[in-house]
Amino acid sequence: MFFYKNNELYVEDVKVSDIALEYKTPIYIYSKNHFENQYKKLDQKITRKHLICFALKANSNLAVINTFAKLGAGADVVSAGEIFRAKKAGIDTTKIVFSGVGKTQEEIKYAIENNILMFNVESFEELEEIENVASSLGKIAQISFRVNPNVDPKTHPYISTGLKKNKFGISYTQIIDAYKLANQMKHVRIKGIQFHIGSQLTDVSPFFEAQLKVANIMKELLSLGIKLDIIDIGGGLGVVYENEQEPDLDQYSNFINQAFKDFPDSLIVLEPGRFLVANGGIFVTKVLYRKQNEGKNFYIVDGAMNDLIRPSLYDAYHKIEPVVKKNVAKVQADIVGPVCESGDFFAKSREIDNLERNDLVSIFSSGAYGFTMASNYNSRCRPAEVLVDKDTVKVVRSRETFEDLIRGEAI
Amino acid sequence: MFFYKNNELYVEDVKVSDIALEYKTPIYIYSKNHFENQYKKLDQKITRKHLICFALKANSNLAVINTFAKLGAGADVVSAGEIFRAKKAGIDTTKIVFSGVGKTQEEIKYAIENNILMFNVESFEELEEIENVASSLGKIAQISFRVNPNVDPKTHPYISTGLKKNKFGISYTQIIDAYKLANQMKHVRIKGIQFHIGSQLTDVSPFFEAQLKVANIMKELLSLGIKLDIIDIGGGLGVVYENEQEPDLDQYSNFINQAFKDFPDSLIVLEPGRFLVANGGIFVTKVLYRKQNEGKNFYIVDGAMNDLIRPSLYDAYHKIEPVVKKNVAKVQADIVGPVCESGDFFAKSREIDNLERNDLVSIFSSGAYGFTMASNYNSRCRPAEVLVDKDTVKVVRSRETFEDLIRGEAI
Repeated sequence: MFFYKNNELYVEDVKVSDIALEYKTPIYIYSKNHFENQYKKLDQKITRKHLICFALKANSNLAVINTFAKLGAGADVVSAGEIFRAKKAGIDTTKIVFSGVGKTQEEIKYAIENNILMFNVESFEELEEIENVASSLGKIAQISFRVNPNVDPKTHPYISTGLKKNKFGISYTQIIDAYKLANQMKHVRIKGIQFHIGSQLTDVSPFFEAQLKVANIMKELLSLGIKLDIIDIGGGLGVVYENEQEPDLDQYSNFINQAFKDFPDSLIVLEPGRFLVANGGIFVTKVLYRKQNEGKNFYIVDGAMNDLIRPSLYDAYHKIEPVVKKNVAKVQADIVGPVCESGDFFAKSREIDNLERNDLVSIFSSGAYGFTMASNYNSRCRPAEVLVDKDTVKVVRSRETFEDLIRGEAI
Repeated sequence: MFFYKNNELYVEDVKVSDIALEYKTPIYIYSKNHFENQYKKLDQKITRKHLICFALKANSNLAVINTFAKLGAGADVVSAGEIFRAKKAGIDTTKIVFSGVGKTQEEIKYAIENNILMFNVESFEELEEIENVASSLGKIAQISFRVNPNVDPKTHPYISTGLKKNKFGISYTQIIDAYKLANQMKHVRIKGIQFHIGSQLTDVSPFFEAQLKVANIMKELLSLGIKLDIIDIGGGLGVVYENEQEPDLDQYSNFINQAFKDFPDSLIVLEPGRFLVANGGIFVTKVLYRKQNEGKNFYIVDGAMNDLIRPSLYDAYHKIEPVVKKNVAKVQADIVGPVCESGDFFAKSREIDNLERNDLVSIFSSGAYGFTMASNYNSRCRPAEVLVDKDTVKVVRSRETFEDLIRGEAI
């Protein structure tokens, strides 16, 4: 839904340069139809009975969540704040799964009171806490365990989560004991099993490896009389940032069908985040200054690491192109922001059109882990977010003001 | 100002555990007297006429800025938002220096209207922009140039700023031309020169190397009839995080006197940030859960990378100790937060007291680049900040609420 026509970048039916002119820069621009298409594509490819729980951590803007809510999505949340957002955005709370290694007592209480679908429990102590909170509320909490399948997803260390050295889940060797323990508890009801091996996987075969391990656990549980209604296969489906292959969804679906063929009645829960939103967003920023330091070129733009931290934090690659292409010579340059850190960059030694002051550039694939990770570092106001639906542009989060910066402070 | 008495951590006259009980966790706790002492120590050691401009990016809480304002400090700012904060906190705007590679037109206008001391100009194009804005306002803008002296500070690549491959400043080879150009402009008044070679320097000799280079530039300028009132020697003084040496302030002062002995009338401007605040703050967090994955220990605490990102972003070391010491055995553990990323950690394989659930731990040296870099990632509310002055505890920023998370959003 982002494309060039006559050398002008469009989002759906709208010129990106028009949006930047009206709403200023830096700015996040989302394509509603891209979000919807991604959801529908995944929804159609998975042939088994399933529920897609959008992983809010990737993009938790209310309008974005609402887009998926209207298509029937549930939510994969990792905090009470995300439950709050999901509710506000119209997600049915009985379609919420609550993941994360560090759920506080208050968060567990809030989740139970909101009748969420289930907790993905990540430790024995968390199980105990949930039992205690549910007991004190006189309620039953539905749970899955997150098993750490020890499968190498071959991705960035910061986004691999299913190795035994990672903090996530309950290890393969302890998982049966966890179910036995939960089975004896009065205020906990076992609903399923969950796993998540990492993010940004474009080769889907590591998923299959993990799925087979999980199916084996399910068989063992069945022999103990524990039948699971839900198989939560996590997220992690990758997207194209540069020249990756798109994940093969047919193969992905086949793997699921094959791995879990002995459990035809269980509901498959999916937790895609990046897959649904990454390429549905761009971050648009303006060239403030150009400079050369001893032969090295710098484009200084008005967006910075506080707005989009992925290049700094993960050394992530984002495609960057001028919003209006002028058929000029290419140069090699660092594209950097105003924040006073050498780590504030979007690209290093990047081949890009020779830009002028006030030229706009689009940093693509910024719909996931963009705004959600934004900060006010250097006392910079967080940017606006707009959602485009065909020819309609809607501000779905207004640009912050100086007053927002100091809210809650007192001398 | 943080010390143990009978195995209990105190901040000034107050038990840290009492603060955590009353204001909850995670929380930033600052010691006002530590801030004041650091300021006074530096102020006394520098024997030449000088102005200390606190680098707000390190800790921009209004109450913290105000603490320095009352001692006569100016401010080193890097955005209009920081000018706004400085003003709110009682800093005289004529003591503000505006640094940064990417000042926007609106920011330049705001700064001129507020009569700041000077812009530290970082490129020829920025100089032009300042001239134009000042002209359109019918005002004179006071400027320094930031020169990039190409000195290796031997620190983390993300916090080294004075190498020619860095985005900062005007290169040594172009600096004279920059002054010549500014000298011909009608709405720009040359005030001084600035340099900053990096952060967290505990050996002060790289400063001297840079100072000598700058003194040479000043001599050359003098021969051209350009006399500078201000020598802004930047920041970068380090602190003790682990077992570094404290920077030798006597030596630092001597270097300044020696390097600039031919310019006895110039005002020395200093831009310390970390040095003033890092060890005046702790980040206190609570153990939620303990778990073992195949022999590896994890303590999951209620603070996370969204609250304090330095370990994730810079692989920074922070000392971590229990708030109440119990004389128990030590274990080796990863101390991690609830955020759903493997990069969400405070320490890896750290030797620490065997902790129990609900134990509090203090993450030391969190007064600089702590809260200022905090985000709402994972829809987590940003923590509270409290400032302690002897036996008085004041909430200087309240904990965020769910409503704060969605402010400005619309479906």
